[in-house]
Amino acid sequence: MPDPSFSLRTPDDDSIARKICDNCGYVAYENPKIVVGSVVRHEGAILLCRRAIEPRRGFWTIPAGYLELNETPEDGAKREAREEAEADLAIERLLAVYSVPRISQVQLIYRARLQRPHFASGPESLDVRLFDPADIPFDELAFPSVHWALAHDALAEAGAPSLPFSNPSGESGNRMPDGRPVTPDES
Amino acid sequence: MPDPSFSLRTPDDDSIARKICDNCGYVAYENPKIVVGSVVRHEGAILLCRRAIEPRRGFWTIPAGYLELNETPEDGAKREAREEAEADLAIERLLAVYSVPRISQVQLIYRARLQRPHFASGPESLDVRLFDPADIPFDELAFPSVHWALAHDALAEAGAPSLPFSNPSGESGNRMPDGRPVTPDES
Repeated sequence: MPDPSFSLRTPDDDSIARKICDNCGYVAYENPKIVVGSVVRHEGAILLCRRAIEPRRGFWTIPAGYLELNETPEDGAKREAREEAEADLAIERLLAVYSVPRISQVQLIYRARLQRPHFASGPESLDVRLFDPADIPFDELAFPSVHWALAHDALAEAGAPSLPFSNPSGESGNRMPDGRPVTPDES
Repeated sequence: MPDPSFSLRTPDDDSIARKICDNCGYVAYENPKIVVGSVVRHEGAILLCRRAIEPRRGFWTIPAGYLELNETPEDGAKREAREEAEADLAIERLLAVYSVPRISQVQLIYRARLQRPHFASGPESLDVRLFDPADIPFDELAFPSVHWALAHDALAEAGAPSLPFSNPSGESGNRMPDGRPVTPDES
């Protein structure tokens, strides 16, 4: 069996170059991916997961991941929280729609709360904890959009009427808040 | 060269069956797709396109289509309006986030207006017209979500504070407003 091998060519009925298999002509259409996640609150504290997997192993994130086929975004956000934090969520509302075009991601981030006071590390987490908002480890967050979501959730908690938020002005997910560029293997 | 041939198997590092190429082992991960579109207003009228392509050729729709790689949703919505209606849009705000899990779609629908009073049929449209809201051909709309978006845009125009909307209660995009099921070749 040959290894997978693809060339970039434009199919006859298309206007954009696609990955076409050199062995059998299969056209691997690539599309942007949808990430679903939640800022989860319980009695004023915020649930964060310390990543057990690359990219950004050891850094903290909100429960989030790729939407699966035939899943609604809300169900996907709940599944990710179950998998990463054994957390059973009640989804409250859409907090933000972010896009990171460099990596072709659209992120749908919800506000949620724990249905019951249980959480634990799933296989993709080294640790799961509830943080008082003042104690969030901002220097150890995994991705720019985790910063954005926590800041937007604080605004929502303070009564901001303008949900859902989108990318902070001028930000496209290419740098951390301290200005450090996000490297390709971090995304 | 053999034809494309895939079998459903679960990769070693995964928990879900994926399409794996019988010839070379390529794993064709399939993900939900993002549709971006707009309800476009110009002097109180609404821009609709009559579809020149299947599914639902001959039926009316809002300008909308699949988000491409490395594109923001707003840019994608503007591109679709250019392609289908030669329309140059100013995006105003997010009107709705719909999901149609049967066909693994998430739809981001914006409110927009024409930047200048020009529009014309692009290659995927038989006709493009501005309709007074009272004259919209509701019996000839292409998809359930076109009905939803037009109804939600009317609520937004009337000052509804609760944007973005989501699927109408109990609706998952499987039937038209008259109760007729949407057939697989319509989606």
